[in-house]
Amino acid sequence: MQYNAEENDLMVYGYHPVLEAIKQGRPIHKVILPTGDFTEHAKKIWFDLKGTDVLIQRWPLQKIDKVAKGNHQGILAYISPVAFDNLDKLVDRVKANGEIPALCWLDGVSDVRNLGAIMRSAACFGMHGIILPAKSGATLTADVIKSSAGAIYHIPLILSKSTPATLSDLAKLGVFVVAVSEKAENSIEEVEMEDPTCLVLGDEGRGVSREILEFADNHFKIPMKGDVASLNVSVAAGVTFYEWFKKSSK
Amino acid sequence: MQYNAEENDLMVYGYHPVLEAIKQGRPIHKVILPTGDFTEHAKKIWFDLKGTDVLIQRWPLQKIDKVAKGNHQGILAYISPVAFDNLDKLVDRVKANGEIPALCWLDGVSDVRNLGAIMRSAACFGMHGIILPAKSGATLTADVIKSSAGAIYHIPLILSKSTPATLSDLAKLGVFVVAVSEKAENSIEEVEMEDPTCLVLGDEGRGVSREILEFADNHFKIPMKGDVASLNVSVAAGVTFYEWFKKSSK
Repeated sequence: MQYNAEENDLMVYGYHPVLEAIKQGRPIHKVILPTGDFTEHAKKIWFDLKGTDVLIQRWPLQKIDKVAKGNHQGILAYISPVAFDNLDKLVDRVKANGEIPALCWLDGVSDVRNLGAIMRSAACFGMHGIILPAKSGATLTADVIKSSAGAIYHIPLILSKSTPATLSDLAKLGVFVVAVSEKAENSIEEVEMEDPTCLVLGDEGRGVSREILEFADNHFKIPMKGDVASLNVSVAAGVTFYEWFKKSSK
Repeated sequence: MQYNAEENDLMVYGYHPVLEAIKQGRPIHKVILPTGDFTEHAKKIWFDLKGTDVLIQRWPLQKIDKVAKGNHQGILAYISPVAFDNLDKLVDRVKANGEIPALCWLDGVSDVRNLGAIMRSAACFGMHGIILPAKSGATLTADVIKSSAGAIYHIPLILSKSTPATLSDLAKLGVFVVAVSEKAENSIEEVEMEDPTCLVLGDEGRGVSREILEFADNHFKIPMKGDVASLNVSVAAGVTFYEWFKKSSK
């Protein structure tokens, strides 16, 4: 999900508006501060954002001038139309609810309509969150929000900054990584979801990336008749979530 | 599936070319003959098509002149890029193969991409055919063919000229009609497919039409968590076919 903050987000500028957005816990995607020595305002914003997931970028003042027409004081914030969750906090929250975390990682799904349909299925079948790659795949646009038919507001979304980082985070959290792949030997019917699990689905062209396939704790395929055709990725995701939901509700 | 022959089909004109297309059993969608008294050629075509599913329309010669620029002799045929099957023959063929017919009826699915994805799932999960309403729903265009990723050539398609006619045909053939509906009490997991069955899925907005719901031999729902969201129709179809495929291959 190539998230283009500058295209999709609400832009807020000026020291006080940006500080207020931070204080109110708004889903800030990134904050722009000017290059060169920090002003007192920039320093305060910098400290407030330390240790958070908010991306800080430094732009020359001329570039900031082009984007913000008012009195921006060299400070911009892009507020996402969608709130992203933090993987650690999400897993903790699910466990605190007495549930076994079940996540889905969309490894490069690039079609906005498929992404929207997958969000709907995830919400329907009670998945706890969807991990989306920050750098590739579908752009999170108004089209995704529309295709999700509102489900985007019911299913926590997590941005994966890199595949190794997310694999490492999942391992630390004790979440099993299960790849759904045509090349697997076992059927998704056999998946056990007694432990925290992250189901990984790849894009339609190349499937789950080799990096994840090699690291995954288990691999399952969706059983089908011969190979005259292949499933649309949103259907593959739906069938996988359905199989998990049936298991988890027994 | 609002099938617009004039937009999508290959047009053939002239007595001999049209007669040849009929003889060769090409998937002719409709034949145009001129208004007024029949010529010998028109009479021959008319008799050849008697008792077949081919639609015959009669147009004034001026209209035929506008469409066909060559020596059309008042006779046009629209040949479909996709061959449609006949319900009786299809059911017989499946039975002759020693299989239990499993069909799907898309009651008004209007989105070409969903239609393509459903064809892919039907081919993957070994459904024997898809019934599409001739008068409403998605137009069978190049987009559907593309979305189906070639599956359109692997799954027989049947045109339903009217809901009562198809319900009556299915009843005569001993095919049970099973509606997939959110309002059903039983889960699709419980579906038994020991008899010839036609699974009916409705469009996303209104679901399966009341006419079919009332007539159906059984009703099943896809189990899901609460009602914060609804499934995309292609996902609902995929899950239903998957459940049938698992049962049928055991």
